[in-house]
Amino acid sequence: MTSVDSFADADRLVAAQEVARRAEVDAVLVTPGPDLLYLTGYRAIALERLTCLVVPAEGDPVLVAPGLEVPAAQASPVGAAGVSIRGWAETDDPYALVASLIPGARDVALTDSMAATAVLHLRDAMPKARQQLAGPVLRELRMIKSEREIEHLRRAGRAIDSVHEQVPDFLRPGRTEREIGEDIAEAILAAGHTVVDFVIVASGPNGASPHHEVSDRRIVVGDPVVVDIGGTMASGYCSDSTRTYAIGHAPDDFLDYYAVLRDAQRAAVESVRPGVTAEAVDAVARSLITASGYGERFIHRTGHGIGLETHDEPYIVQGNVEMLRVGMAFSVEPGIYLPGKHGARIEDIVVVTPDGVEALNNTTHDLVVTDPAFSS
Amino acid sequence: MTSVDSFADADRLVAAQEVARRAEVDAVLVTPGPDLLYLTGYRAIALERLTCLVVPAEGDPVLVAPGLEVPAAQASPVGAAGVSIRGWAETDDPYALVASLIPGARDVALTDSMAATAVLHLRDAMPKARQQLAGPVLRELRMIKSEREIEHLRRAGRAIDSVHEQVPDFLRPGRTEREIGEDIAEAILAAGHTVVDFVIVASGPNGASPHHEVSDRRIVVGDPVVVDIGGTMASGYCSDSTRTYAIGHAPDDFLDYYAVLRDAQRAAVESVRPGVTAEAVDAVARSLITASGYGERFIHRTGHGIGLETHDEPYIVQGNVEMLRVGMAFSVEPGIYLPGKHGARIEDIVVVTPDGVEALNNTTHDLVVTDPAFSS
Repeated sequence: MTSVDSFADADRLVAAQEVARRAEVDAVLVTPGPDLLYLTGYRAIALERLTCLVVPAEGDPVLVAPGLEVPAAQASPVGAAGVSIRGWAETDDPYALVASLIPGARDVALTDSMAATAVLHLRDAMPKARQQLAGPVLRELRMIKSEREIEHLRRAGRAIDSVHEQVPDFLRPGRTEREIGEDIAEAILAAGHTVVDFVIVASGPNGASPHHEVSDRRIVVGDPVVVDIGGTMASGYCSDSTRTYAIGHAPDDFLDYYAVLRDAQRAAVESVRPGVTAEAVDAVARSLITASGYGERFIHRTGHGIGLETHDEPYIVQGNVEMLRVGMAFSVEPGIYLPGKHGARIEDIVVVTPDGVEALNNTTHDLVVTDPAFSS
Repeated sequence: MTSVDSFADADRLVAAQEVARRAEVDAVLVTPGPDLLYLTGYRAIALERLTCLVVPAEGDPVLVAPGLEVPAAQASPVGAAGVSIRGWAETDDPYALVASLIPGARDVALTDSMAATAVLHLRDAMPKARQQLAGPVLRELRMIKSEREIEHLRRAGRAIDSVHEQVPDFLRPGRTEREIGEDIAEAILAAGHTVVDFVIVASGPNGASPHHEVSDRRIVVGDPVVVDIGGTMASGYCSDSTRTYAIGHAPDDFLDYYAVLRDAQRAAVESVRPGVTAEAVDAVARSLITASGYGERFIHRTGHGIGLETHDEPYIVQGNVEMLRVGMAFSVEPGIYLPGKHGARIEDIVVVTPDGVEALNNTTHDLVVTDPAFSS
């Protein structure tokens, strides 16, 4: 089994060729997005003109790029890594150009985020090539984080923790979720992220919708509020952490299940270690919540991998028998949702270590009850 | 020919079914992105869990959504429009669910931005269905803007114009492109955009790279600076405008071609009217620039459509014989680039009107020469 721990970025293309050979694909085709960033460090503009890194199982990788983006590509780490760049002019057919670089290819793997425009044009340009997803080919590389990647995730974790430390100041009764969300978005950027990926401020009954974002609902004393936030750092690595707050106090029925949730989340985190399956971590959280009578109220999986994307492998979900390995990074985020009333979720990003687990989010897991007298 | 000018949003699904029947496709499959926003007003979160609007040529559209996003979907315009929503649980196969909704489908059109993950899983779930792109099916609807859409684009145009009015204040000698870009990004948001889509500040030799973004280069007196900026308004509609500035003064060779460029851009805008082909507008700009000896320095097409995406149909490029029609909106943005020295580009968004053309960007097209004494 290949570990990427010791890979410098320049070695990742070599590693990708190795996994391509092992997967018996003739080439991996990578359009702009996290795979391209991972393999080359190139943050290409993802527009309608085709940019595509062609990584043949044998031979040299080539970047196909629109002519007017060739200078940007040359100035990027792609140029520094010595990858050859083939520009195409406005009236050229870039799909035919890609096909010409891998004549006779029978099995090609396409980066998971590739747009249908490119998928279907490449299908037509290479009618004899079977298309499959690159995710399963590249997952070994992207899923196991190197020490340098883990350090980037640690910094992202500390950044989002610093935002959660400020959230009680924003949660003043009478303010709308949207107003609070704007303050949080500013704080996410001020904490060192370059992109705000999402801001969920789900107060009162909105807390029962796991993917609620913000609304014009004004928070009132007695509201539980789910705050799930994340961004992308300059390194490209993402943060994602959820805490649940209460404005002054919280309803008794909420407090009952919040305690269940906190214990379940902690037990799930503590169950993480090399050799445990992803679904076993889900089962730890789910069985504790189910034993307390809230099983039907925990309506999503326990977590998702994270790295250059907020949601990535491994997924911590029933049916995923993948064994956890050192360097995997993912969320542990059980939730309990009472439709029409309120909800709660607690989420940490964790990394699998040789000894067990390292949590990258470390603000308190107790319910944070704000002081409603400190109002606007 | 169907015009969408009079369509309310609720009619767009009906119109989509009509164009699907005309294109002889059995269903259009729409994952989150501009097509979904156009057809339903639903700004779904584009994550790894499948959300897919199934628009059969005959019968009722159905939105397939992850269970935990069903509340958000119900609260969105999708719910208000009465589209039925089919949630799927964490361990269900959503691709099989989509396939079950269109049994016997032989030709399906996929939204252009659909990720390869969905494209290939849908291919495998519906092995007898031929996949094609939805772009050519839906383009008639999305390309011809209604009066309401044009009003959204006008507002976006005024917003980005107000940013260009502030740019001379930001362009102080000694500042880096990155610092200037940060000021511009703030101004884009302050002007009413909700997303900063791109900020190009290309000074001196960087101006010769059309898709340069920003760098740590400090601007100096005598630099020409290409500033190409755009964002997305709350309406979902995008802005995009380029102006070229000079810090104090500009080199003579730059001034020579800037005058050529300004005249070519104006002539191209003035050539826009119903019945003219897209490539004819490109030819107007290109022939004037070529006649002045800079043909080889104009290395990209003249423009791109704009709406819910910054780059969309129609493309103003050689070979595109599409005839311009009332309601099309696109950029007219010729450029001249001297590698190693400097470059210039002037870009307006224009809309085809019954009488000819309406320009949505109206700041001066003359070179804006800043006062370098007003320095930091």
